[in-house]
Amino acid sequence: MPSDLIAGLCADVGETHVSTTPPDRVAYSRDLWPRCQLNRLVGDAPKLPEAIVWPGSPEEVAAVVRRCAAGRVPIVPFGAGSGVCGATLPDRGGVVVDLKRLKAIRRIDAEAGEIEVEAGAMGELLERRLEHRGLTLGHFPSSILCSTVGGWLAGRSAGQCSSRYGKIEDMVLDMEVVTGDGVLRRTPRVGAITSGPDWNQIIVGSEGTLGIITSATLRVHPVPAARAFRGWLAPDVHAALEVMRETMQAGLRPAVLRMYDPLDTAMVGTEGSKSGGPSSKLKELLKGGAGGKGTVLRLALGHPRIVNALIERMPPKVLLVTMAEGSAAEAKATDDAIARAALRVGARDLGEEPGRAWFAHRYDVSYKQSGVYEGGGFVDTFEVATTWARLRGLYAAVRKAVSRHVVVMAHFSHAYPGGCSIYFTFAGSGRDPAEMRRRYDAAWRAGLDAAQAQGAVIAHHHGAGLSRASHMPSEHGEARRWFLALKASLDPAGVLNPGKLFAEGRG
Amino acid sequence: MPSDLIAGLCADVGETHVSTTPPDRVAYSRDLWPRCQLNRLVGDAPKLPEAIVWPGSPEEVAAVVRRCAAGRVPIVPFGAGSGVCGATLPDRGGVVVDLKRLKAIRRIDAEAGEIEVEAGAMGELLERRLEHRGLTLGHFPSSILCSTVGGWLAGRSAGQCSSRYGKIEDMVLDMEVVTGDGVLRRTPRVGAITSGPDWNQIIVGSEGTLGIITSATLRVHPVPAARAFRGWLAPDVHAALEVMRETMQAGLRPAVLRMYDPLDTAMVGTEGSKSGGPSSKLKELLKGGAGGKGTVLRLALGHPRIVNALIERMPPKVLLVTMAEGSAAEAKATDDAIARAALRVGARDLGEEPGRAWFAHRYDVSYKQSGVYEGGGFVDTFEVATTWARLRGLYAAVRKAVSRHVVVMAHFSHAYPGGCSIYFTFAGSGRDPAEMRRRYDAAWRAGLDAAQAQGAVIAHHHGAGLSRASHMPSEHGEARRWFLALKASLDPAGVLNPGKLFAEGRG
Repeated sequence: MPSDLIAGLCADVGETHVSTTPPDRVAYSRDLWPRCQLNRLVGDAPKLPEAIVWPGSPEEVAAVVRRCAAGRVPIVPFGAGSGVCGATLPDRGGVVVDLKRLKAIRRIDAEAGEIEVEAGAMGELLERRLEHRGLTLGHFPSSILCSTVGGWLAGRSAGQCSSRYGKIEDMVLDMEVVTGDGVLRRTPRVGAITSGPDWNQIIVGSEGTLGIITSATLRVHPVPAARAFRGWLAPDVHAALEVMRETMQAGLRPAVLRMYDPLDTAMVGTEGSKSGGPSSKLKELLKGGAGGKGTVLRLALGHPRIVNALIERMPPKVLLVTMAEGSAAEAKATDDAIARAALRVGARDLGEEPGRAWFAHRYDVSYKQSGVYEGGGFVDTFEVATTWARLRGLYAAVRKAVSRHVVVMAHFSHAYPGGCSIYFTFAGSGRDPAEMRRRYDAAWRAGLDAAQAQGAVIAHHHGAGLSRASHMPSEHGEARRWFLALKASLDPAGVLNPGKLFAEGRG
Repeated sequence: MPSDLIAGLCADVGETHVSTTPPDRVAYSRDLWPRCQLNRLVGDAPKLPEAIVWPGSPEEVAAVVRRCAAGRVPIVPFGAGSGVCGATLPDRGGVVVDLKRLKAIRRIDAEAGEIEVEAGAMGELLERRLEHRGLTLGHFPSSILCSTVGGWLAGRSAGQCSSRYGKIEDMVLDMEVVTGDGVLRRTPRVGAITSGPDWNQIIVGSEGTLGIITSATLRVHPVPAARAFRGWLAPDVHAALEVMRETMQAGLRPAVLRMYDPLDTAMVGTEGSKSGGPSSKLKELLKGGAGGKGTVLRLALGHPRIVNALIERMPPKVLLVTMAEGSAAEAKATDDAIARAALRVGARDLGEEPGRAWFAHRYDVSYKQSGVYEGGGFVDTFEVATTWARLRGLYAAVRKAVSRHVVVMAHFSHAYPGGCSIYFTFAGSGRDPAEMRRRYDAAWRAGLDAAQAQGAVIAHHHGAGLSRASHMPSEHGEARRWFLALKASLDPAGVLNPGKLFAEGRG
């Protein structure tokens, strides 16, 4: 790292907005990728960034990038650190650029149905500001309390209502981006309307490797006038998937269709007593909080094959939670249409409560994993997606592939006319941290291999980061060369989040 | 052109599928870009391709591309020639690759809601085949009888029901593409679901400059069970736009919202007597078919400023045609919601007939322009798009900009939650073909300049071709460099439709 770089950064953004202190460097050495925690338990020291900077304007971001590019110093853009795939790890050192000072909502245009917002704006605060104006972005990731607009865009984030509002890439109209040459640019406003390539769809999902997003114009919607909640107990996974597929393919636009597989259904409960999702239940059990079962489950996590075999013999019934919204008429019409489909497959109406309970606790899950680690186990989630026809095959194949390594459950959410995502939660344990990490890595590798063998895509909304980097080249095939051509043009010094997205094999 | 090239092409695709005859070369020297017709009237000979080939498989396309790349011979991919912007003109000579033999529907998967279809499949035939299976692509460009899947994808086509089904770029899941190095590739299946850049959105709209699309996987939907048609007579453009905006921003998904401006309303008539759109009326008038008014209008087209000033004084009432579809309940609910919004702005219900009449004649317009030329005038269309807030400003600015050159009318269609397209029809005349072409060019230049000055995008669904090439660099800004980087990687010999999309200034 060039010795005069720090002084230069201080000149660029102000001395108080640059840190080289060890606590800051340690704090920015990780995100919420669970493997970071396993590394810590094993005793592997993380790579620390040499400095953290907090630029106060897009121009300052550009100045920082120019300076780093000149010195060939890696840059890692950083939002709120809630990523679960390691995309913001400074694993080649360098400078972390924290964008949270860029938090202004520059423009709210209710008539146009759009806003311009800076990349560092926090999700929940943004949504609250919009609500005051009768608007919503419609983007509700479970990380909303600890994630930013820029992070959403960089990682192709999906919110819980993506069936109705789309993923973040469907909401973006244009972006302001600092490319690797340190120039502040604006992507041409394309998307629904224009000719030529849509550059937004290249910057979205590029995870900081092609540019640092500093602001974006996003579509917003009126706050829905009404919501209809419901829970259904369907005979099995297949029946519930039919309801979801029929609903989406009929052109209806429910906000949420969320189905828990048998184990996940048992964990959630069907009486609407859900509080915090499977991870919190695991925590309870692991800690012995649920009537002494803790010891049993700790043992169980050490013998995943046996547990998974037992799970296969569980009652096949599954919980389907639905939330329809819009005008009162639309919410009711959608709820009614789902009901017709659900009754046709023999599902039982559980009333509003399961839907309301899900809604009340919809962001809890992000804060519950640490308890499992405290209890001596590990837990992670793994979301993949495919077409309706391949969905059951994908579910079975991933379960089978990971079941020797971990206990696995899943829910099916983010339904679209063309397909759906499966969100696996897997948990395991080991005699020591090193064995835990081996099992964790083995489960990930097996899951990704199985998903690709089924023709599924290996991520739905968590991004690639480092956890999927090994499988990204095969996912994108020859298009990796296209990425490299673009990367050479947009980031000639190769300083933007190097080694991410299409990194060499790992894991 | 290398002398052995023709022999090589014959070896690649079979002798009967190569032509160098003058009639074929003349036939493939133009598409439906109206300026081609003006050039012909002026006496400018078009540039002819040296050969036309009709490959019978993607592999044969790849072989042709390899051969042409080796010889540095330009290649122009060709579907059905219905483009209206000159994108398929072989204006640097070379080989036209007609893809119509690649017409197979390789796979129809109703459960997955997707099909795989080859690029040369004709739109209407495809839609009819799907209908037999209870499915629809939902893509109904007015050119559907004479356009192909590959042409739609290459040009970012929109169908008349894009408010409900999206544009073609919203329907594509992946594509098979022959890049400029003559290798058959498949774009990674991204779109709604995965991480990393979405390469489909770079190939879509690239108009043959990055690759030749040979097949695509597209989303399909069940044929709607019901349709609700209606016409409204709204007090003025502003009131009707409010109805359209409210409807789309409320999250409703009508298939068609189509509003004619005052002159267009007068041409169409509000009694549902529409037959063939404004161009056919112009033709009638120009030919004196409508009670001797022909002479008047011929004169009028020569004095557009006066006519446009008179138009400004026309009664402001406008016709809004709507078509809702889906389940019977959804169609009715959408129709009802539109009615509430329409009554609120003081619109008068004209009943079903205007909607039904539009539906019956929805593809006529594409076949009516030639009559205007026979009558001694010229006519073209020009579609731009912007956000709701800018829409009226755009309408006024473009009208003003072109009104010294041509008589202009417009309809507003392709409404989305974020904005809408304006489809201008302009007609003019001149003492001789050279003056007509000058006026034609002046109108285009003025229209594009005005649209860009208003912050609008300069195309909605006709693509860039040559008619917009002059304004594409400013539209895409710095992203043009990204295009060039990709182009160098995907088409190293620079043979794919050279000079298109981001050509030097023209017109």
